[in-house]
Amino acid sequence: MAGNKSPESAAIRLSLYLRHLRKMKKERIISSEELAQFIGTSGARVRKDLCYFGQFGIAGKGYLVGELQEEISKILGLDKAWGVALVGVGKLGSALLGYDGFRKSGFNIRISFDVKSNIIGKKIAGVPVYHPYQIPKMIREQKIRMGIVAVPVKAPQESIDLLVISGVEAILNFSPITVIAPADAKLMQVDFTNQLEIMSYFITNKVKEKTQARLF
Amino acid sequence: MAGNKSPESAAIRLSLYLRHLRKMKKERIISSEELAQFIGTSGARVRKDLCYFGQFGIAGKGYLVGELQEEISKILGLDKAWGVALVGVGKLGSALLGYDGFRKSGFNIRISFDVKSNIIGKKIAGVPVYHPYQIPKMIREQKIRMGIVAVPVKAPQESIDLLVISGVEAILNFSPITVIAPADAKLMQVDFTNQLEIMSYFITNKVKEKTQARLF
Repeated sequence: MAGNKSPESAAIRLSLYLRHLRKMKKERIISSEELAQFIGTSGARVRKDLCYFGQFGIAGKGYLVGELQEEISKILGLDKAWGVALVGVGKLGSALLGYDGFRKSGFNIRISFDVKSNIIGKKIAGVPVYHPYQIPKMIREQKIRMGIVAVPVKAPQESIDLLVISGVEAILNFSPITVIAPADAKLMQVDFTNQLEIMSYFITNKVKEKTQARLF
Repeated sequence: MAGNKSPESAAIRLSLYLRHLRKMKKERIISSEELAQFIGTSGARVRKDLCYFGQFGIAGKGYLVGELQEEISKILGLDKAWGVALVGVGKLGSALLGYDGFRKSGFNIRISFDVKSNIIGKKIAGVPVYHPYQIPKMIREQKIRMGIVAVPVKAPQESIDLLVISGVEAILNFSPITVIAPADAKLMQVDFTNQLEIMSYFITNKVKEKTQARLF
């Protein structure tokens, strides 16, 4: 598997393919053209993405949905559950602790950190809350490799740096403040404003597309 | 302006160009190649995106940052402030009401809706909370064209349908439940799981890219 050379865009597309495959019957056969249409890319792009990770499919026919689902899950590393640490248990953080979608997809927030003394030592949505000074100890003990930062007002940089030093390899940052990406970890940024800007564009230009727009 | 034919991907790229331009000095000149590098696309793609909306730039040199910023803002409809309605004032909804990023970018949540009687009639982060039965009346009165749905457990479909009937033209949905996209409005979906899957891919395949990956 040529994982080292694969760009992020392939991972985004694979994740989107999987989303559509999950809604289909496992014994169905799907063509690359059909799969392409769902996410607004080309059949050639789909074939390239999948060939990149080895040979799949029945030449001239397509892919067996169940098999493809399994293969893509493996490529994305979703064939196992992930333990996740959350920093910041404010309004947004609490909402994330209660977000069913994570657990359903195999992402379990196992520990959380906050400076508020009234919640330290307690459990929120079943997840224990610790003081941030325990980040290195807890991350190592629980062998956590993924982090979510939802520090609303205070600078998230310290949280990100502390997680990375402790061994976290990828972080999802909800804070709208610009942070310096750590050299030793993958940093992903959640930005709601970006999506509102696209909505603004759609209303302004009166674009009414019924099919999903071409993303890649 | 050929807005009607423009695909969503162009809007996404324009929004990303703008993000980078905002960090630069207005009197700087930037080449399409330079701008392309920021978001991981090609110079040709940048030139195509911008030409699509008319002629900009100084041939053979590039674009004046301040001018380009203004033009892209206009194309995206960001040269005015937008009023936004929020449905669902739970943990996530309250976090969104306190999210500074929206207001800074010209998106003002002016009204919100929730069924909880203990918050109806009150203000949260300065925003009044109404009962959902008042959606049609309030949306029309306030001439609101954008909606955010953050209904955590209950089906968001009713909220979306009610907003669209009332005249809302674009909706950002935070609910992880699959909804039917309305024919008369643009529906955008926030999905945190998707980003965690990409993180899983990065950890699994040990991809350590220091430059932003090619997205388009």
